[in-house]
Amino acid sequence: MMITPVSTLLREALQEKIDQKTKPPGSLGKLEQIALQAGLIQETLEPELRKPAIIVFAGDHGIAAEGLVNPFPQAVTAQMVYNFLNGGAAINVFCRHQQLDLKIVDAGVNHLFPAHPQLRDRKIAMGTANYLHQPAMSLDQCKLALAAGSEEVQALHEQGCNIIGFGEMGIGNTSAAALLMSYFTGTAIDHCIGAGTGSNAQQLEQKKAVLRQVQVFHPQPNSPIQALATFGGFEIAMICGAIIKAAELKMMIVIDGFIVSAALLAAAAMHPEVTGYCVFAHCSDEKGHQAMLRHLNVSPLLQLDMRLGEGTGAALAIPLIQQAVAFLNNMASFNSAQVSNRTL
Amino acid sequence: MMITPVSTLLREALQEKIDQKTKPPGSLGKLEQIALQAGLIQETLEPELRKPAIIVFAGDHGIAAEGLVNPFPQAVTAQMVYNFLNGGAAINVFCRHQQLDLKIVDAGVNHLFPAHPQLRDRKIAMGTANYLHQPAMSLDQCKLALAAGSEEVQALHEQGCNIIGFGEMGIGNTSAAALLMSYFTGTAIDHCIGAGTGSNAQQLEQKKAVLRQVQVFHPQPNSPIQALATFGGFEIAMICGAIIKAAELKMMIVIDGFIVSAALLAAAAMHPEVTGYCVFAHCSDEKGHQAMLRHLNVSPLLQLDMRLGEGTGAALAIPLIQQAVAFLNNMASFNSAQVSNRTL
Repeated sequence: MMITPVSTLLREALQEKIDQKTKPPGSLGKLEQIALQAGLIQETLEPELRKPAIIVFAGDHGIAAEGLVNPFPQAVTAQMVYNFLNGGAAINVFCRHQQLDLKIVDAGVNHLFPAHPQLRDRKIAMGTANYLHQPAMSLDQCKLALAAGSEEVQALHEQGCNIIGFGEMGIGNTSAAALLMSYFTGTAIDHCIGAGTGSNAQQLEQKKAVLRQVQVFHPQPNSPIQALATFGGFEIAMICGAIIKAAELKMMIVIDGFIVSAALLAAAAMHPEVTGYCVFAHCSDEKGHQAMLRHLNVSPLLQLDMRLGEGTGAALAIPLIQQAVAFLNNMASFNSAQVSNRTL
Repeated sequence: MMITPVSTLLREALQEKIDQKTKPPGSLGKLEQIALQAGLIQETLEPELRKPAIIVFAGDHGIAAEGLVNPFPQAVTAQMVYNFLNGGAAINVFCRHQQLDLKIVDAGVNHLFPAHPQLRDRKIAMGTANYLHQPAMSLDQCKLALAAGSEEVQALHEQGCNIIGFGEMGIGNTSAAALLMSYFTGTAIDHCIGAGTGSNAQQLEQKKAVLRQVQVFHPQPNSPIQALATFGGFEIAMICGAIIKAAELKMMIVIDGFIVSAALLAAAAMHPEVTGYCVFAHCSDEKGHQAMLRHLNVSPLLQLDMRLGEGTGAALAIPLIQQAVAFLNNMASFNSAQVSNRTL
């Protein structure tokens, strides 16, 4: 796997193009940074976003079967996959409204789905093992998951897609993400844990106690992939593989919330160059996500106090990215519009 | 003019509908508040956004002719109107991408435009007077401007539009907005002044000194309309009239940045009920806007560090408002999708 760092060759030419648009310099704020990034990634002054897509990976978590960390029952993962297939979830509504392609991947849900034209069967197992007692998955399973994520991205790329966001569904997966965040950023686990999909104060204390116990049981995985196998979910490992492949293919990668950012931490630990291809969609209301974004030293596009997952933040951010590229390509320049530039 | 306060009759029923959607309660954050507001404004559980539109009002400012407060020459106002008509400005690009209707209104630009199918001629005068020496406009001119804004909204409403954003173009109009902000919020003028479209430190000090002088010359206008006439621009007065009419017609009003918020302060001083119909699109990078939003006790949808005006913030926020209404209408409920709700 070879990931080329984002080229900086056209930085000055792109900045000059942006500054010649009929607007005060810098006045489009973050959209100017996104326009620049798109041009650098695609190595052109006229970047183009083609066939934007979201892939939602779903998987179950051994820890969730015991109900120690999650207010919703594990069965909700499978129920929500059916909801995705029937078009009734938030991510369906958002993708339809913005004409984003949407793929659903069974990464390892604890349920056998009948074949469905919209469902990609990448099931590694009927959910991960419980990391209170053993690693969530074997190294082989983790490698399978990374490869599956990679292949899903490759397939979309072959159909012409060059901007992609990822989403996830997995009851219990904020716990996996918190453990990964703690491992990759060195943050104490208590500061990585939030209310997830809606734990109350007592449930939150229990979640913290359980995850501290998990860390004692697995003191220090000795590599990024080992950490991913120990704490991860199948959906998280697939997103990690998907991010790496998307960067290799020089696609724009739209990073959703807490879970997807945890997958990015793993991907960046393996290939630091991936972050140059990432746009950060939103800051989740899940407590750990703000700290994660600070750790990555990035500023997201949206702060809507959302904490739903499914890739909903990514879906809402893609239109802003499209608008950034649109202004770069389609706005008049001071010269072409015969507008006077500032007098000094 | 009779403005009905936004009805609260359906609040509980709407909240119940939102909470029964297949997502953790509150997890769509600000979009849930927008969905609720849309339902309350339209007094229905199935609100519908029709023919979203942006009206950009352009006007010149007497103060700008002297070049004391603005780094761009006054001629840029007219040049930018031509840019709007030719489709080359940021607001054109954003509206095209999201299929928003766009109207351009000459509220009082210091230039005679030939007739153009996209340009609405509402010219009150060839720019306002210089408030360093006299009120910017007469009371009669101010009333004419309020009526013109009102009529422009009425016309769009008759064509089926029920969500509308406003934009502005007017070299020097951050000064007018700062004076209005200081008057309506009681904030010291120095805290209302920012760099506008790009003043440097020395220009900023000069801008402050000039506006302090203006306040000394006009110590205390004795009514909201008097303040609007003294400090306002024709484009600001028209936006004020437009906001009031849109609230009367129970439209959703998308408030852009610093200048449009100043027009809202005037509108709300005349009719406090208007704010219930407003969605706050973004927080401008113009310094005074944050304080203005705090004064209004509102939280905007976007923080993209933009400070361009033209209604660009409103144009970028409208898709988020559409997505909020889309989830309310189109997401499955726990019941309809047979998804288990939380266990406690």
